[in-house]
Amino acid sequence: MAEQIFRVNMSDLSTKIETVPEEWKGLGGRGLTSTVIAAEVNPTCHPLGKHNKLVIAPGLLSGTPAANSGRLSCGAKSPLTGTIKEANAGGTSAQMLARHGVKALIIEGKPTDNGKWYSLHVHSGGVTVQEETEVIGMGNFAVVEVLNKRLGDKVGVITIGPAGEMRMTGANISIKDPDNHIRSNGRGGLGAVLGSKQIKFISVEPTSEKVAIADPEAFKTANRAFAKALVDNPISKALGQYGTNVLVNIINESGGLPTRNFTSGQFAGHEAISGETMHDTIVARGGKPKHNCHAGCVINCSQIYTDLKGQYKTSGFEYESIWALGADCCVDNLDHIAEADSLMDDLGLDSIETAVAFGVAMEAGVLPFGDGAGICRILREEVGKGTPLGRIIGSGAAAVGRAYGVTRVPVVKNQAIPAYDPRAIKGIGITYATSTQGADHTMGYTIATNILGVGGKVDPLSKEGQVELSRNLQIATAAIDSTGMCLFIAFAALDDATCLPSLIDLLNARFGINLTADDVTNLGMSILKTERAFNLAAGFTNKDDRLPEFFAEEPIAPHNVVWDISDEAIDSFWDF
Amino acid sequence: MAEQIFRVNMSDLSTKIETVPEEWKGLGGRGLTSTVIAAEVNPTCHPLGKHNKLVIAPGLLSGTPAANSGRLSCGAKSPLTGTIKEANAGGTSAQMLARHGVKALIIEGKPTDNGKWYSLHVHSGGVTVQEETEVIGMGNFAVVEVLNKRLGDKVGVITIGPAGEMRMTGANISIKDPDNHIRSNGRGGLGAVLGSKQIKFISVEPTSEKVAIADPEAFKTANRAFAKALVDNPISKALGQYGTNVLVNIINESGGLPTRNFTSGQFAGHEAISGETMHDTIVARGGKPKHNCHAGCVINCSQIYTDLKGQYKTSGFEYESIWALGADCCVDNLDHIAEADSLMDDLGLDSIETAVAFGVAMEAGVLPFGDGAGICRILREEVGKGTPLGRIIGSGAAAVGRAYGVTRVPVVKNQAIPAYDPRAIKGIGITYATSTQGADHTMGYTIATNILGVGGKVDPLSKEGQVELSRNLQIATAAIDSTGMCLFIAFAALDDATCLPSLIDLLNARFGINLTADDVTNLGMSILKTERAFNLAAGFTNKDDRLPEFFAEEPIAPHNVVWDISDEAIDSFWDF
Repeated sequence: MAEQIFRVNMSDLSTKIETVPEEWKGLGGRGLTSTVIAAEVNPTCHPLGKHNKLVIAPGLLSGTPAANSGRLSCGAKSPLTGTIKEANAGGTSAQMLARHGVKALIIEGKPTDNGKWYSLHVHSGGVTVQEETEVIGMGNFAVVEVLNKRLGDKVGVITIGPAGEMRMTGANISIKDPDNHIRSNGRGGLGAVLGSKQIKFISVEPTSEKVAIADPEAFKTANRAFAKALVDNPISKALGQYGTNVLVNIINESGGLPTRNFTSGQFAGHEAISGETMHDTIVARGGKPKHNCHAGCVINCSQIYTDLKGQYKTSGFEYESIWALGADCCVDNLDHIAEADSLMDDLGLDSIETAVAFGVAMEAGVLPFGDGAGICRILREEVGKGTPLGRIIGSGAAAVGRAYGVTRVPVVKNQAIPAYDPRAIKGIGITYATSTQGADHTMGYTIATNILGVGGKVDPLSKEGQVELSRNLQIATAAIDSTGMCLFIAFAALDDATCLPSLIDLLNARFGINLTADDVTNLGMSILKTERAFNLAAGFTNKDDRLPEFFAEEPIAPHNVVWDISDEAIDSFWDF
Repeated sequence: MAEQIFRVNMSDLSTKIETVPEEWKGLGGRGLTSTVIAAEVNPTCHPLGKHNKLVIAPGLLSGTPAANSGRLSCGAKSPLTGTIKEANAGGTSAQMLARHGVKALIIEGKPTDNGKWYSLHVHSGGVTVQEETEVIGMGNFAVVEVLNKRLGDKVGVITIGPAGEMRMTGANISIKDPDNHIRSNGRGGLGAVLGSKQIKFISVEPTSEKVAIADPEAFKTANRAFAKALVDNPISKALGQYGTNVLVNIINESGGLPTRNFTSGQFAGHEAISGETMHDTIVARGGKPKHNCHAGCVINCSQIYTDLKGQYKTSGFEYESIWALGADCCVDNLDHIAEADSLMDDLGLDSIETAVAFGVAMEAGVLPFGDGAGICRILREEVGKGTPLGRIIGSGAAAVGRAYGVTRVPVVKNQAIPAYDPRAIKGIGITYATSTQGADHTMGYTIATNILGVGGKVDPLSKEGQVELSRNLQIATAAIDSTGMCLFIAFAALDDATCLPSLIDLLNARFGINLTADDVTNLGMSILKTERAFNLAAGFTNKDDRLPEFFAEEPIAPHNVVWDISDEAIDSFWDF
């Protein structure tokens, strides 16, 4: 299918199919969502108003047989951070949308009738808007079940749970995965943006169409080399065995595992929640320790976590969610954590933002540290029902801090700081501070080099080299996020000389072009600058590129270090 | 008494008496609080953390016999707006502090023990810190009652209610008035700052000391002329008869009375809540239609509103509070409004911020428009008890908008827009947008000239002349706020040629100096620039000097006008 722009205007419920503008042709995923937002959205608009747009774009290689290319990007002005925002996830929709020729789906405007809900249905002929009543108020698991019945098992589903319907700023956009479970475009409250458009879900018709490949033979060759580089990589292997949760013990050992709302860098209960324990538990209960979130993934970092009776409990059970509910909230019971993770999947809530919000709520005395059952109860009874407490928690960590007058609130640009303490792992602090999207480890994952020794080694406790490290990784990540590739290709790309050239060969074979490594770097830099320009026009300044003051004043055990990178050093990030 | 700086460090509970630095000698009230904050507070600090300071300063003329000179300024970095903030009110403390030689009381640091509460006691020898248990958790009326018993009826009291103890960003600082009722330093959540210092109240010992006056004869002559100008002014007279609530009918007639969360400019129930109805009700019930908030006031805009049984219900029952609970929440029952006003006085909540928050909550469906009894119930049962809903409401209008995903949220810099619609009265929109302290009518009260015809006439519906009008008034206001004078002297100052010269004569006679009118203007400009510089250093930009987008897009009845002043025109405000 030829690539086209699918556009939906919710103000008058009209749809349009547009030719892809010349300047957007070389873009996909984050590169495209950020470019469209920067071009079409007023940076100072209300994120939940009619002037914001939600842009959904498969990556440049999505829909092809390229390994690990099934990530779908969603972009908008974020109601959580006020910045430009892109979040991507696996699931089945990226590849299906690409095969329908969807370069991007742009959703704009806002219905004039506040009471009505709608759905979109994407097919090769275009996109249709329909009023929806049946699944309104349902959790994500029920939505997938109903739509599978209504539209067939193979239908693609992009949906919001009750959190998005209630326009909570912790709401994510959820995508059906190959096993009818949930993948989450997790950060920045993009689910609230879809909710503000009064769209409950987007269904994608199954298709036998294929994405055109300019040089199929060269593509095959490149893909073989690329997949081999991924499979051979030792970190890929560890991710396949233990999932991302392999990191609990590693980060605890490094002293950078934020514990008890960021008051310590090590958690006494780390063994109980570690990837090794999780793996053994899954195996003992007959769950699935290895699982992929989208077809074509060769790493398989996901898993199916089952309860004591062997029933499905959750999947895509990530280190960051387990850390946040575990160490940060002091819950050392993996079943409670899995239950909470599943509830967040069902409600459609960012599990990092929400769990860090619970950590702040615990500091405020709303519930005791360690109360995993209490977390589950609040998610079910309060957040799910939209009570005032539920809305405070569902609005994220900063909202909890404001409501309860807490000063120790781990956020940057109003977004929760994830699973790596910036005092003990300084590179990631630079990423949190300078990211165009608020605190987000995936924007420039310095843990690779600071802790895992991938792509060299930069001492996590030293001030030296952190800005350069974060900058290089943020540039590379912006480019990778545009290809539809999972970020976990970065481990191979940093350490295996065949990986990045194969990725470039894939792009060249797909489009019949001649990109070089420099072109890819330039693409990454250009995306960051586009995003930064949007934020500056929205009123952000370098004063927003700062960590909360407690990081500079409270030393964290066991290294007893504070955040000590100067404002000038942070600001030098943008010298490129 | 010689003027000195009284300083309290709550981190180690130490106190110090300091000589007034040369550059602070010519400053008082807002000029001094803003100068101290700008000099000593890191603009990016957490407003509830140990780096913020609360500065309390009487005006330059406070403590003297000058008419209307009893306003007390409190300043800090605001936890509501993030900007520099000054709020002033009457009551008995300004004059008492001045007579004790307190040029400013600076409270800094933060106790290391989170569980303890303290009080300060100011006397001529200095200030002492004491642990406090008895009045913790009490409402303001009870605090005054207990302290009157403990320290004698004449004691000055500056306190916070439960809202400030809970560090709600809608909390004000409350001051005992001559009748043991409450005056409020209302805006910007300064009560939360005092609460964050774990100080429940500041008591001020009665004193027979006098403020030194350099030329007593000249002072007396000037005061006579000044008081006459105030008393003779027709607006002073109207304020004395009907209180500020005389404005309900006037602003309704102008089409600028924001109604039903700013969806209309006129309120069908305006007669029921008007100043005229209030006056007649007070007279019929044997209340007090005229009352002063501090000794020496010759305008007497306050009143004692009684219930059906003739019992005290509330005082200082202002137009802005009555508008917000009345027109904005569609409550046309003055008794419900008085009950809510009294509850807010007791809880220590900004009645503008909180009532506008109720309007947004009504739009969100939390309670129906018009439900005055519901407002009282929520104040008593939710805000007073610190429930999650109470904390959302007590955090102000923007917090309610964020929690419920409302896009029509009337705030600037996170602070609620008060009682004059900027679409129908454009001058005040410039004040809301450009004020260094978030939306605040008192920062540059263009209603005087736009509606009341004081100081000339500028058509409220025209774009012409509004920036100049707001600029001139904001400069004059910054100067007036430094003298300890009530802002209502401005009506006489604008229209009576004898008023401003007498005020300058008062200052000159007090200090033995030779200020000119230009000096006063220069002081006002300098204060605004100091405040603006603080905000810029805190990360604010001209993007923050904007009204919410709905004002530009939703025409307001009856004039069917939108906010149409360009960004460039707004930004030209600072061209001085």
